[in-house]
Parts: sequence; C-alpha cells; structure tokens
Amino acid sequence: MPSSEFSLIKEYFAKRSSLRDDVVTGIGDDAAVLQLATNQQLVVTTDTLVKGVHFPSTTSPFDIGYKLMAVNLSDLAAMGAQPRWASLALTIPEANSDWLEQFSAGLFELADQYSVQLIGGDTTCGPLTLSLTLHGVVQSDNYLKRSGAQVGDAIVVSGQLGDAGLALKKVLANQSAESELLKRLNRPEPRVELGQSLVSSANSAIDISDGLLADLGHILIASQVGAELQLENLPMSAAVKSIVSSTDDWSLPLAAGDDYELCFTIAESALPQLLSQHPGLSRIGTIVEQQGLRCFTSAGELATPHGRGYEHFASIHVEEPAP
Amino acid sequence: MPSSEFSLIKEYFAKRSSLRDDVVTGIGDDAAVLQLATNQQLVVTTDTLVKGVHFPSTTSPFDIGYKLMAVNLSDLAAMGAQPRWASLALTIPEANSDWLEQFSAGLFELADQYSVQLIGGDTTCGPLTLSLTLHGVVQSDNYLKRSGAQVGDAIVVSGQLGDAGLALKKVLANQSAESELLKRLNRPEPRVELGQSLVSSANSAIDISDGLLADLGHILIASQVGAELQLENLPMSAAVKSIVSSTDDWSLPLAAGDDYELCFTIAESALPQLLSQHPGLSRIGTIVEQQGLRCFTSAGELATPHGRGYEHFASIHVEEPAP
Repeated sequence: MPSSEFSLIKEYFAKRSSLRDDVVTGIGDDAAVLQLATNQQLVVTTDTLVKGVHFPSTTSPFDIGYKLMAVNLSDLAAMGAQPRWASLALTIPEANSDWLEQFSAGLFELADQYSVQLIGGDTTCGPLTLSLTLHGVVQSDNYLKRSGAQVGDAIVVSGQLGDAGLALKKVLANQSAESELLKRLNRPEPRVELGQSLVSSANSAIDISDGLLADLGHILIASQVGAELQLENLPMSAAVKSIVSSTDDWSLPLAAGDDYELCFTIAESALPQLLSQHPGLSRIGTIVEQQGLRCFTSAGELATPHGRGYEHFASIHVEEPAP
Repeated sequence: MPSSEFSLIKEYFAKRSSLRDDVVTGIGDDAAVLQLATNQQLVVTTDTLVKGVHFPSTTSPFDIGYKLMAVNLSDLAAMGAQPRWASLALTIPEANSDWLEQFSAGLFELADQYSVQLIGGDTTCGPLTLSLTLHGVVQSDNYLKRSGAQVGDAIVVSGQLGDAGLALKKVLANQSAESELLKRLNRPEPRVELGQSLVSSANSAIDISDGLLADLGHILIASQVGAELQLENLPMSAAVKSIVSSTDDWSLPLAAGDDYELCFTIAESALPQLLSQHPGLSRIGTIVEQQGLRCFTSAGELATPHGRGYEHFASIHVEEPAP
C-alpha cells in the first residue's frame, strides 16, 4: 500500500482519468486543458456536501461519492446539458485508504455512467467537505432556463416526491428504513437524459433539491409569473402518501427536498406528446399570471399545507440564493 | 440589512457579476453558461483554503478572499492561460455580513484586476472551507506544460523565494512581522502576464506553491530529466538571506512554499532576450540528463541543505500529488 497521502489520492483518482478524447491535459499539471468545438457553450455547476450538514455521519463513503456526483449531474440535467468534466475539491481529516476507495468507487460509478472524466481538483486536510465542479456543454443557447415559464404552461415533475425526505427523517430518528427508500436518499438518479430531451420543448426547468415549493418558487420569481398546484396530483410513493393522508402534513412532498427530480413548465399543447413519451412524468399544476404559488385540494379549495412546506410557501418572494 | 443568509450572499457576490460579454448566464440559474470561440481551449483549476490549515485563524477575511483568488490565478499563470470565470464553493459556519463583506472585497479586488467574473458556486454551512474553481482559456495547444523541460534548458524563477514562509513562521510564533513581509504571505502576486508571455518561449513551467524543490521536482518527473541548482543564485530578500547565511538552513527559499512565483525552463539561447525583457527574473540552474535534483554551493561543492527542504529533496522521486 502506498505510504504517502499523495499516492493514495493518485491511486483512487488519477489512474481513472483517461475517458475522453477532448481532455487535452487532465490531472497532473497546474490545470486541465479541454477541447471545445465551435458553436458550443460550457455549462458549469458546483455543489458541496458537508458532513453533519448534508449527510449524517453514518452515511457510507460510497454513497457520499455517488451523491456528490448525482447532485451536480442533477444541476446539469436542469440545464439540459451534456455532462463532460469534473473537478473535485476534497477536504478530508486524514488520508484513509478504505474511505477513499469507497468514496471514489461511488463517485466513478455515476461518472462512468455519464462519461464524465475527473480532470483535476485539490486535496486538502481539514473537516470533511466535498465540493465538485461539474462542466457540461450545450449547443449555443440551447439550454433550459429558470426564467422562461409562460402563463398557461403546464407544470410537470419527474418521478416521485418526498421519499428522500422520509428516509432522512427515519435515519435521523434511528428508525429502520427500507433499502428502496434509503436508495432514494443516498443514490438519487439525476434526470440527465430527460433534461437533454426537454431542451427544445420546455419553457423553464429546475431540479428539486430544496423542495418543490422553494425550487418552483425560483422559476416563478425568475419568470415573473405565479402558479396553481393540485395537491392530489403530486406524485408520491405509498409510504409518503400514507403519511400525508394520516397527518394532512404535506411537507414531505412539498418541502423536504433532496428529491433531485426535475420540475419544468411546458406549453399545454405540447403536453400530450411529452406524457406519452415519458411515462414517469406527472402534471401537477399550471402557470398563471397572478404572482405567488397557490395549492388546491381535490375539492378545489385553497390549501394551507402544514409544516416547513408552508413556511417556504409563505416566503416565496424572498431573494434567490446566490452564488 | 437583509435578514436571510441567501440575501447576504447575494449582496456580496451576485451583484458584482456583470463583467464579461462571454457570460451567457451567470449566477442565478442551475449552472453558468459561457461562450467560447473556435480554436480555444478551456483551462480549469481548483484550489481550496481551510482555516487552521492554509491560514491561521488571525488572517483577515480580506486577505483570505484575496489569496484564494491569487493561488488559483497562479495556477493559470503557470499554464500561460488568460483568466476568465470563477466558481466559488463557500462553506461558512454562519452568515456573518462583516466577514462576507471583507472576504468578497478581497476576492473581487484581484478578480477585477484580471477581469475574472464570478459565475456561480455553492454556499453551505460548515467549518470554514473556501474552494475556488477558476477557468481560463488558451489558443489551442498554446499552453505551458510541466512535461516539456529539455536537457540544457536554463531554470528560471520570478521574484524572490522564502518571504512568505518567513512571514508565516513569524505569525505562528506570535512575532511581529514587517507589513511588506506579511504582504508576501497574504497577498501573493500571481504572475499571470509573465505566464502568458512565456507560452511561445518556455519549455516547461509550474508555480511555486509547495516550495521550489517540490515544484521543480514535478517538472523533472514529468519531463524525465534532472536539474542542477546554484544555491547562491536563488533570489532572496535581505531578511531571508540573513537567516540563510547565519544558519546555513536553506529551507525557507527551497521548501517553505507559498511563494506563488513561477519556475520555468527555457532554452539557453533564448535566455538573454528573456532576461532583458523581464528584469525580475533569476536564472538559478540548468536541466541535465542525470535524473534527480542536485544543489551546488558557490564553491562548486554538492550541497546538502538542512531542514525540510532537504527531506523534500531526498524524496523527489515519490509520485505526484493528484488530483
């Protein structure tokens, strides 16, 4: 086993880096050099995971690596971009080869799936903090914005909402959680292909990381429009549905976040074809002129959902997070 | 004063972002979108600063922001790249507006100087960790490599070596340090213009962050060559020179690091013109066929410099740090 920290890092990261023809220089120089074609734009996103903040200390290193890649891929999915290259800022208390082996295995499992090449980064000693900058490309100006929602657009989400939030709740309460539910927390599936397929049809898009209300709120603010949601149309697993029905607390699907599904808006006329091509999508509401976000029950009454979701809802006009 | 953390971040970072025409979409969407021209390559580097590891807790937020930008610019300088866009992963224990104001002022002071635009990032709660990913461009294949050193090349460094190391030593020992010396530690000057001017003439280059011996060692390993250094030619300030003469310990100029000067190799024949154009450069040695790195005294004897420098020297064949 190599003795120095540097060689440990090299063993788990640098040797994996020979995936793409457009990497002119990857790991091992002062910076990476990447080839771009004419008429392409670069799309860059950064997400950080901090131990104790973004994941409990019990999370496996594999899942941390996997999720770090997944949450960044999810941002590129929300832009409709094709993933390409990643830079990793790895801050670790000590060079632990078991930890690094599992973390890198999780990171590369998803990276390989999307032909993402690690092209550099920085390794430092300190409290466990993992920051990934992911680069993708789009044909010029062919990307999904937050700001394009039009009055009359259908509001659509992929997958199901609230499972990751429920899993986290159980983990934090030391309750056992089914492996399928845990997978929704620890190994979210970024909707990369869906995002790319929406570039020519959707008017706006975002990925759901902070919760549907908060993230849809970003679309509404950027697009200067409002929204009406039908609560009964929210896609939920049986487990989440059962909690919502028994408590009338909608915070899991509306505000727990960590779903990494896409929320987008699309012209009503384009909806039938979209839904026939993508069976996993749910239409949950409509973009309207009146600003703000209103939820309706199946009886057509204005709902006031309990819990954290409603607080988010009430503060939907605060400024956007940045940078 | 805005009440939420998000609006604090927005106040100090997002409002500054309207610098470049080639930023199609900056802060505020899921990712940034950047325009590149034909025949250009993207150069990407990431550096992280961790409190207590890369700077003492007494360092001012302004200096932290300044240095975070400086160390990344220094990597682009070592590639001969033109700086363009930055992504910031900011992990902070709490949203403190005084801290953010000073930190962002330091960051932007240097960013503005080089027309670098902040195009996004992520803000998370946790132990103070600052990670910047900086993007630059070069004309295709016109960049400085570590791997191009040729036997017979002159080895050249910019500026003076060891001042930052001496300043850090004094700070950690609670000794007073002259403001000029502290500036060398806290506000290093990245050699961006010098790097760009070397693209067509230098055969290899690196920036000195870990110390001359370690960083020149990376050039030697990547280029499969050796080096001979003349110790008396190392450029040093009067303060560093006085310590070296009285102790015969060369670790400050050879191994303390944090200099952020460039070390490069260039054909002997190109040296006179280079030195006449750049008065701040020093020729310190020669690339030779015999692998390894040997230092000579002014009497022509093989030197065995004391201190950390020599340990680095002895282990110059270990694997390179990566990623």
